[in-house]
Amino acid sequence: MAQEVADRRDVDFVLHEQLEVEQLSRHDHFSEFTRKTVDLIVSEARNLALKELLSCQREADEEGCTFDSGQVTVPKAFHRAYDLFRQGEWIAMCDDPAWGGQGMPRTVAMAAENYFNGANFPFMLHNILIHGAGKLVERFGTDQQKDLYLKNMYTGKWGGSMLLTEPEAGSDVGALTTKAVKNDDGTYRISGSKIFISSGDTDLVKNIIHPVLARIEGAPAGTAGISLFLVPKFRVNKDGTPGEFNDIVCTGIEHKMGIHGSPTCAMTLGGKGACIGTLLGEENKGMRAMFVMMNEARLHVGMQGFACAGASYLNALNYARDRVQGAALTAPKGSSGIPIIQHPDIRRTLLSMKTASEAMRSLLFYVGFLEDKMTLSADKDEKARYQGLIDVLIPVAKGYVTDRAFELCSSGLQVFGGYGYTREYPQEQLLRDCRITQIYEGTNGIQAMDLLGRKLGLNQGQAFMDLVTEVEQTIGAAKKVTELASLADTLETTLNHLKETAGKLAGDLGSKNILTAFAHAHPFLDVTGDTLMGWMLLWRAVIAARKLGDNPKKKDTAFYQGQVTGARFFISTVLPVAQAKMAVIQAGDTSALDMADTAFGS
Amino acid sequence: MAQEVADRRDVDFVLHEQLEVEQLSRHDHFSEFTRKTVDLIVSEARNLALKELLSCQREADEEGCTFDSGQVTVPKAFHRAYDLFRQGEWIAMCDDPAWGGQGMPRTVAMAAENYFNGANFPFMLHNILIHGAGKLVERFGTDQQKDLYLKNMYTGKWGGSMLLTEPEAGSDVGALTTKAVKNDDGTYRISGSKIFISSGDTDLVKNIIHPVLARIEGAPAGTAGISLFLVPKFRVNKDGTPGEFNDIVCTGIEHKMGIHGSPTCAMTLGGKGACIGTLLGEENKGMRAMFVMMNEARLHVGMQGFACAGASYLNALNYARDRVQGAALTAPKGSSGIPIIQHPDIRRTLLSMKTASEAMRSLLFYVGFLEDKMTLSADKDEKARYQGLIDVLIPVAKGYVTDRAFELCSSGLQVFGGYGYTREYPQEQLLRDCRITQIYEGTNGIQAMDLLGRKLGLNQGQAFMDLVTEVEQTIGAAKKVTELASLADTLETTLNHLKETAGKLAGDLGSKNILTAFAHAHPFLDVTGDTLMGWMLLWRAVIAARKLGDNPKKKDTAFYQGQVTGARFFISTVLPVAQAKMAVIQAGDTSALDMADTAFGS
Repeated sequence: MAQEVADRRDVDFVLHEQLEVEQLSRHDHFSEFTRKTVDLIVSEARNLALKELLSCQREADEEGCTFDSGQVTVPKAFHRAYDLFRQGEWIAMCDDPAWGGQGMPRTVAMAAENYFNGANFPFMLHNILIHGAGKLVERFGTDQQKDLYLKNMYTGKWGGSMLLTEPEAGSDVGALTTKAVKNDDGTYRISGSKIFISSGDTDLVKNIIHPVLARIEGAPAGTAGISLFLVPKFRVNKDGTPGEFNDIVCTGIEHKMGIHGSPTCAMTLGGKGACIGTLLGEENKGMRAMFVMMNEARLHVGMQGFACAGASYLNALNYARDRVQGAALTAPKGSSGIPIIQHPDIRRTLLSMKTASEAMRSLLFYVGFLEDKMTLSADKDEKARYQGLIDVLIPVAKGYVTDRAFELCSSGLQVFGGYGYTREYPQEQLLRDCRITQIYEGTNGIQAMDLLGRKLGLNQGQAFMDLVTEVEQTIGAAKKVTELASLADTLETTLNHLKETAGKLAGDLGSKNILTAFAHAHPFLDVTGDTLMGWMLLWRAVIAARKLGDNPKKKDTAFYQGQVTGARFFISTVLPVAQAKMAVIQAGDTSALDMADTAFGS
Repeated sequence: MAQEVADRRDVDFVLHEQLEVEQLSRHDHFSEFTRKTVDLIVSEARNLALKELLSCQREADEEGCTFDSGQVTVPKAFHRAYDLFRQGEWIAMCDDPAWGGQGMPRTVAMAAENYFNGANFPFMLHNILIHGAGKLVERFGTDQQKDLYLKNMYTGKWGGSMLLTEPEAGSDVGALTTKAVKNDDGTYRISGSKIFISSGDTDLVKNIIHPVLARIEGAPAGTAGISLFLVPKFRVNKDGTPGEFNDIVCTGIEHKMGIHGSPTCAMTLGGKGACIGTLLGEENKGMRAMFVMMNEARLHVGMQGFACAGASYLNALNYARDRVQGAALTAPKGSSGIPIIQHPDIRRTLLSMKTASEAMRSLLFYVGFLEDKMTLSADKDEKARYQGLIDVLIPVAKGYVTDRAFELCSSGLQVFGGYGYTREYPQEQLLRDCRITQIYEGTNGIQAMDLLGRKLGLNQGQAFMDLVTEVEQTIGAAKKVTELASLADTLETTLNHLKETAGKLAGDLGSKNILTAFAHAHPFLDVTGDTLMGWMLLWRAVIAARKLGDNPKKKDTAFYQGQVTGARFFISTVLPVAQAKMAVIQAGDTSALDMADTAFGS
């Protein structure tokens, strides 16, 4: 069986049966994206992913990136893949067609990204960074900046990166020290050092446009004094022709656990000559611009982690169907071996992977769908409601999803036994690649703090309550389906516990117990995520149960029954445990705070 | 601060305060091993580990093993380390002094192994395999076999391995096809292929003695027809001088996710010439011999996993103390950064790592201690009781411990943020190395099945109940300590839930629900382990509370308070969740069994 990276039946289920993405095409803005077009897009993405990206996944991991005299070389096979990716116009799927984007609904782009990242996430990092840098120009650039750079970025002629982290400024961006001094012509001379810069240099493209966070001379300390600049690797003359080297130099690349195909660069700006940048947006408003982009960037990271986990699941499933080992537990002694999918522990592992990865797919696509609905909405309050939902969901889509994705990748390796530990199979690479997603774009600890400290109280808690309302709608629908009623009850009880837990924590935040609350931030992220996964699976089951009533084809019957059984599995086995975790959070154990520093060890 | 791999204070606590290992020296058998000697052994092990093994941990990972024309080359630095390891007489720490062993209590050896494996587990694999192969000769060999091989193995002049797995016989050893045909002189011609053979070949030693599982021509199918043979790489003449090559050939090595310093070999026996082996033990009793060694081998694997996790914890702790990032949550805006150990989420992560790794240390050393008590006991019933306790604990010491150890290694990486993902720090290697421990010596799925299917009902359930009695003794002691009484109650409630859960599953095993029971085998391993970890931490806290009453020195006060607080953390936050997991097991969800194979995905 050919290797798959995402189950097309399930991708289509989320797009067409759960989210009914075609409804978006009823609006002028997305009128092109009919069912037929959407299906074509997904098919093309799948073909490119399986034929061109997956085929160089391992090779690129083995070859890695090299650094020699300030020049980065990416894996050879990425050049062909990149040309095809550009030709397919995949870099700026959802971006403004006026500048070379495809104007696609984000929901549909999620499906394409599912395939691309499942096939070769390190390769995708190159593209996502170009898109992200371009999006900053699209959102905050002057006409001149857009004219000079944007089309060449969205079409992939030039690359992009994002220079944020410094050795002493990681989670604490406000501590950065890269300096900007204004020139008479309105440009800035930038100087400083950055680290952990994905695609800081690459031989895939002739020029790279770097958004750079820096502090203008005399600006306030902390995040209030950070500005965003656009710094090209080679300056661009006003007529668009290439100018001289801009003294932004890669000084080395990291040797990492995974994502070997993506160069993680240390960069020095203005170390020898002049590194000239132009202001992107307003002075000292750099962090605000970054925050606008943050949701999208974090959603992408959730997608990367999930896509690895989803691919790992399908590999494990196929292996478990093929691998014969051990007789059935109930068979007479001396019976022949059976495919390991028939052993209860493997079956439990697979169902646990299936339900978690499918719930992740629904959750991530749903966030994309909310963005599309927000784009289409003309009503200010409605827009704000969508924005609130997205804001609350992002730390879950990034933090919770990547935490679980790593666990799933580990389960997917385990199903292969000793073979899973070898580089002969993709499982160990998926695990290594996936591990970065818990760290970058804000560690998952930061995501947990974001959910608790910012998102829970957003709009006086209205955003969180809007999310609760959404879950309650599914619960209401499920209660009307006989076989789902008890699952709906369990989700309802869990949701009520979650509300109580959120209320308790919100109270603690405004009290002397604030540190206790934050000591339970990550567990709170976990239980919020568990509840939302249960929601997504119940939502799926409601649809599946309805479809089963219509006497579907045999293959669809199996699929829909799998949805109902999967919901039962997750809601019956995970949610009761989540409720116990909520009780623990509410009990507010302070041990971690009570420990003397010296008591942690000598 | 110099890198540590195990906290000496805690190692000493377990040896001297929790297990009171000196009591063993009151018996003739262990009379040499007084407190002073034990301390010297641990100090020497620590020195060797930190100075010689840790220093080549990364180098060996980068260099890896190479394979060229049938010859395996291990990392260069391992030669020096191996010479020192041999000189220190560490290979056969607990083995028979008559054959070159040191006759050390296993409890003490656990401390040494903690240091060695924490410093360089891939290196230690070489040694543990020599010991393991030697032990088989010691236990099952004829005098002639011992004379020819054993001293050279225990002193490390010759190597050892274990040829068990075949491509179609992994978890299902009974499926193996390697063939043995008896010669007129009583030896056997062996032919077949083996895979995943650690130290199947190496340039560390001149000869390698391979125990090999094979089926004698005409023997029954399955495990009942498997015999064990001793197959040297180079035959050994009766006078001990080296003979000719024995046609046991390494045909390649695996490229793996981790343990790069340990060659994982594919082996062909008798492919060209004659590969001659001698029977070790009795015909068709090979599996029985393997089972005798299984407990020890699995305990070692638990130690490997734990040692990685323990080292990862200490690295994370030191990093968190040094790394300044972000102001305190309660500090005024613009305040300077603080060491990240002061941030609540990092603190929770560290305490979670500390408690889990310390509980693992106690559990593993305790199993070693039970072996020593069994060795010393002259009473048949008492010996049987110790054996029963060990048998029940082994799947936990291997399966549960390595599952948690991998999670700890991941937490330990996360504390380092982006740096943790780079190869500049040891965290990512510890994670990669640790991952194998969940797989080999019986996957953790097999461990879970062993606990449920074999160990729970061992001696009509007496072994499991003996373990319960041990836990209850600690609960009784803790109830008398005011500040521990409520923790004792929580552990007691959890233990009672565990007994109920075990009873439910035991009932299912003998009924038509047997597959349902096995679908919950791994969760049952989890909750059993959680309960035992809570036990170990409460046991520690009982001692610590007593010592705190004696006005200890300041440093000891911090240590003991850390024990009490740690027990509170684990028992208050983990055990309530374990209880919920037990309720889920008892509810006996059958979803995983109900799924049609086709419903898992197309």
